[in-house]
Amino acid sequence: MPPYTPLDLLNLGDGFPSASSHPSLYFESLSTLTLLLHETHTIGYLLPSIASTLRDPHLSGPHWSSNGNTITLQGSTAEERSSNIHATLNLWRAQHLFRVLDGWRDELYAVYAPRGELLFTIERSAAALFGLLTYGVHLTAFIHDPAYPGGLALWIPTRSRTKATYPGYLDNTVAGGISAGYTAFETIVKECAEEASLPEVLVREKAKCVGAISYFYVRSEGAGGESGLLQPEVQYCYDLDLSDRRDVVPRPCDDEVEGFELLGVEEVKRRLGEGKFKPNCALVILDFFVRHNILTPENEPHYLEIVARLHRTFEFPLR
Amino acid sequence: MPPYTPLDLLNLGDGFPSASSHPSLYFESLSTLTLLLHETHTIGYLLPSIASTLRDPHLSGPHWSSNGNTITLQGSTAEERSSNIHATLNLWRAQHLFRVLDGWRDELYAVYAPRGELLFTIERSAAALFGLLTYGVHLTAFIHDPAYPGGLALWIPTRSRTKATYPGYLDNTVAGGISAGYTAFETIVKECAEEASLPEVLVREKAKCVGAISYFYVRSEGAGGESGLLQPEVQYCYDLDLSDRRDVVPRPCDDEVEGFELLGVEEVKRRLGEGKFKPNCALVILDFFVRHNILTPENEPHYLEIVARLHRTFEFPLR
Repeated sequence: MPPYTPLDLLNLGDGFPSASSHPSLYFESLSTLTLLLHETHTIGYLLPSIASTLRDPHLSGPHWSSNGNTITLQGSTAEERSSNIHATLNLWRAQHLFRVLDGWRDELYAVYAPRGELLFTIERSAAALFGLLTYGVHLTAFIHDPAYPGGLALWIPTRSRTKATYPGYLDNTVAGGISAGYTAFETIVKECAEEASLPEVLVREKAKCVGAISYFYVRSEGAGGESGLLQPEVQYCYDLDLSDRRDVVPRPCDDEVEGFELLGVEEVKRRLGEGKFKPNCALVILDFFVRHNILTPENEPHYLEIVARLHRTFEFPLR
Repeated sequence: MPPYTPLDLLNLGDGFPSASSHPSLYFESLSTLTLLLHETHTIGYLLPSIASTLRDPHLSGPHWSSNGNTITLQGSTAEERSSNIHATLNLWRAQHLFRVLDGWRDELYAVYAPRGELLFTIERSAAALFGLLTYGVHLTAFIHDPAYPGGLALWIPTRSRTKATYPGYLDNTVAGGISAGYTAFETIVKECAEEASLPEVLVREKAKCVGAISYFYVRSEGAGGESGLLQPEVQYCYDLDLSDRRDVVPRPCDDEVEGFELLGVEEVKRRLGEGKFKPNCALVILDFFVRHNILTPENEPHYLEIVARLHRTFEFPLR
């Protein structure tokens, strides 16, 4: 199966057809789905099994209205809608309806209406059941050093072998979801301390937001829970240049990470090709490689497709 | 009208609705257009006036077949198709059918089938008549210097007052279209010499491709010729960091540019807000600002929309 090309990695992380580049494929896929609506806005895509569960008040409670191929969550305020969806999730857990909820995190994600207005909050592990757009932060710590082939080396962690999702896979230096109420920057500062023991003062001074990637992931086995769940995501990307702070060495702090290695770009490319990275983390590395002139129009035949597709636009409102 | 926000600038440069973020608007726009097809692939969008001209062999020659809302250029090889479309353009010029052809450049652009195969070449000034995707290179030369507010200054040229398109507007340090047969890198090297007198050795060593932007421009008055012509574009973006080469100063060489100024980021922002930049050059600066942590999630409310829409995916095959 390996080696994976950059385009293979992109297809693994961004598996749902795009309306812009492949309109027919997109509408074929969409025709099998039910739209989760707020007023006239699509806020999520529902697989048939989940839509039929939501339409059954015995399984999901009375908080859902259905009309043709659309379903709406009832409630006139964010509080009411949050409480209603939470009640549904409690019913589902009691009935053991969806395995993905075994990974319950007790962490709330925010779902937005247009203009960044809060629509409701939802338990993190449940977002993919509704095809809801979620947000995270990923940071790449690196050094410029001619001793490494390619002149650049990245701090790469191995995920803990006991993690429910992608155990033992490689990851970005630091990564985390943005919980409801948090900014991107405060999230990266917090995660840098928790996952990599990076000093807060250093992170606040030197971590720079340099873009965002967006992709529509169709969950595979490795993600845990049901396969095929729809997971559109945005990740704010941060660079942390430690070239002049060689004394700073990421170390595991919580139990998320087994250890860190400083890997030259050629070694990172090799492990990407072997499929060793968590799928969305591979996309963050591809974006890093583009911005740092490692993937170029001269050495990557699918350069333009990769650069554009790393920045997918969604029908859903953004935060 | 001014000041323009970054989102206003994006809307000026990327005015055609997107299938991904606004499917209904997109299909409403598309329903007024005719598709230019190659086999089953859409390679361009035709306005009604242009489609009806192509359907009339007295106006456009015999090289076009029409079927429902699609039109195909005849010819079984790239040479034959190029020769056929050139014959049509000669007829149109003789009849003075389209004002945009007054800007005839004697420069050939390449149009691609899937997998980068050459479909045909076409005179540059005619590409927008067929809504064909074209390619260019834009370079931003800059210095890091704490003397400037924001710590960064960009070399910004003013376009010649005698240019047919956007006379007197501000531009990127160097920019140019990619002619048929040229690579992106060879184009930027050539344009750096022609437009900014930058030494070839320096450019080859220090100009780095750091991504690409893509957008669907709907031509306005300033672009010259008919308004409303459809112009989807990809621009490879290059950074040229001159922080350690303060002796290098861009100077006009050909007659494209009136002069260069070194402007701090706050001054660049002010002039962007005043609408002084050529629309697509403003988008290159927004991308530069994102990559250099000048536009951030904290200071730009539409950050995610801007980052994603600067990287539009198209239905058309890519080079």
